Amino acid sequence: MMKARVTVTLKTGVLDPQGKAIEGALGSLGIEGVASVRQGKVFDIELDAGDEASAKAALERACERLLANTVIENYRVELV
Amino acid sequence: MMKARVTVTLKTGVLDPQGKAIEGALGSLGIEGVASVRQGKVFDIELDAGDEASAKAALERACERLLANTVIENYRVELV
Repeated sequence: MMKARVTVTLKTGVLDPQGKAIEGALGSLGIEGVASVRQGKVFDIELDAGDEASAKAALERACERLLANTVIENYRVELV
Repeated sequence: MMKARVTVTLKTGVLDPQGKAIEGALGSLGIEGVASVRQGKVFDIELDAGDEASAKAALERACERLLANTVIENYRVELV
């Protein structure tokens, strides 16, 4: 059983209203110095695969087809 | 300006229906071998702070007060 972490983040230039809201809320809570916040998603995945290469290939397919919207998001696959 | 990544994940034992749905969807898409999926959040934060220690302290305060629900979630702060 392999463990992987997939991180999906917005591409540079894509607006992130949720991140902006968090930025404002942190200021209201008195947490100073925050210049920007951008929110993304993380998926911790356990999978059975013959080897690292086939695990990575399956995870990349998962990102392209379901986990990320590649028009506006980048993804990164790490085996952990 | 410092850059940090905050990762918020569900604690072990907390049900993750969204992760379960993704698990099922990956199977339907023909991506085999996925045993479990758990979804979390990631925040990429830029902040001004005097030094690493005060940046970490501010980010931990942000997690405790806003970014994580510490009843059901763990958080991890990394300066990148």
